[in-house]
Amino acid sequence: MLQKTTRLSLVDQVIIQIESLIESGSWMVGAKIPPEPDLVNDLQVSRNTLREGIRALCHAGVLVTKQGDGTYVSSNSTLGVAIQRRARKSSLLDTLEVRGALEREAAKLSAERRTEEDVERIRFYQQECNSSSVNGDLKRYVAADIKLHQTIVESTRNQMLIDLYEHITDAMQDSITAILKKQFAGNLPPKQHDELVDAIVAQDADTAVRVVQFFIDELKRATEMEEV
Amino acid sequence: MLQKTTRLSLVDQVIIQIESLIESGSWMVGAKIPPEPDLVNDLQVSRNTLREGIRALCHAGVLVTKQGDGTYVSSNSTLGVAIQRRARKSSLLDTLEVRGALEREAAKLSAERRTEEDVERIRFYQQECNSSSVNGDLKRYVAADIKLHQTIVESTRNQMLIDLYEHITDAMQDSITAILKKQFAGNLPPKQHDELVDAIVAQDADTAVRVVQFFIDELKRATEMEEV
Repeated sequence: MLQKTTRLSLVDQVIIQIESLIESGSWMVGAKIPPEPDLVNDLQVSRNTLREGIRALCHAGVLVTKQGDGTYVSSNSTLGVAIQRRARKSSLLDTLEVRGALEREAAKLSAERRTEEDVERIRFYQQECNSSSVNGDLKRYVAADIKLHQTIVESTRNQMLIDLYEHITDAMQDSITAILKKQFAGNLPPKQHDELVDAIVAQDADTAVRVVQFFIDELKRATEMEEV
Repeated sequence: MLQKTTRLSLVDQVIIQIESLIESGSWMVGAKIPPEPDLVNDLQVSRNTLREGIRALCHAGVLVTKQGDGTYVSSNSTLGVAIQRRARKSSLLDTLEVRGALEREAAKLSAERRTEEDVERIRFYQQECNSSSVNGDLKRYVAADIKLHQTIVESTRNQMLIDLYEHITDAMQDSITAILKKQFAGNLPPKQHDELVDAIVAQDADTAVRVVQFFIDELKRATEMEEV
């Protein structure tokens, strides 16, 4: 699985190999990484080289070392970490506008590209949203809502758009959940996504974009009210 | 200027201080960083700690060490480096779609928020574009074109949008220039931006968005032709 490193600086090779283990999912987020002697052996590098690579990945926010315990995978993407750090320095409104831009593009491309299989997955999470809103189950609603939007973005097949959207959404999820909670207070909107999903199914890009814009504008209004 | 570090791990403090020197422009991109003994003294850390911080920033792509010469600032943002690395793994079409998403949002927000001062700057670069296209000066045209779009994005006042747009545009600039070169071959489009600028000046967000969409669709078509 791990390959002996060649060319580049040894530390850079260690970093690239570890990054690809994480990106490919061989090392999952939250998992403890293998013990140092095993890695030294697998990667055929010195302990110092390995340690320096691991420290660089800790600084990048991809790994985290817990004192007296071990090193864990904390993120599957340096881009994700960089975006989340950037979002933390930004206002929620700014972040929401960027998310809106990506989400409108996703709605448009999804309407153009979604397959029948995508439609099936999208319909599944749409129904999850609708049934949990009927039951007033906010937690289940939020989870289904996230999955629904993620499935729509994935159906664009644009991996860069998918990554950026996921990381930006992650960075703002807590704030959005808080707003939803206040806004609906046990009174979740039924059929919230029906118009968007119907437009994507009908491959009507214009309507899909318009509906997303309406969602984002609503969220912006709610956010501005929070911030006043 | 440099402050003695407190709390956090010493290496992390070194990294954060250096990052903020770079982000604030005290250390410019392309500049050589001060000699090691000066930094050891200014930051009051050991040589080893300093070196580890610098190495981590090299791995992040923010600094670059030239053998037998010294260490230089290579980027002013870890987010920028992460996006450029991501763009390098993506197709030009995927990157173009993400840029299109950000650019439409920018056109909309610019139409809503631009000040009279913004209009003056935007008009300046519009005229630069037009006069260099009349003269068939591709190099000057490309430079003015970049500045024009950047000025429009800056007038949104959304710093996260500004940063993302700048880094994604940087990552794809060479490819775009090559396409422009082929597409127009000494015959640059005159008044290319007039409709967009007029819409922003008139605070007509819908038209501004429509014109940007048209630009991006043209670029996508040209890119698809290249890739066939």
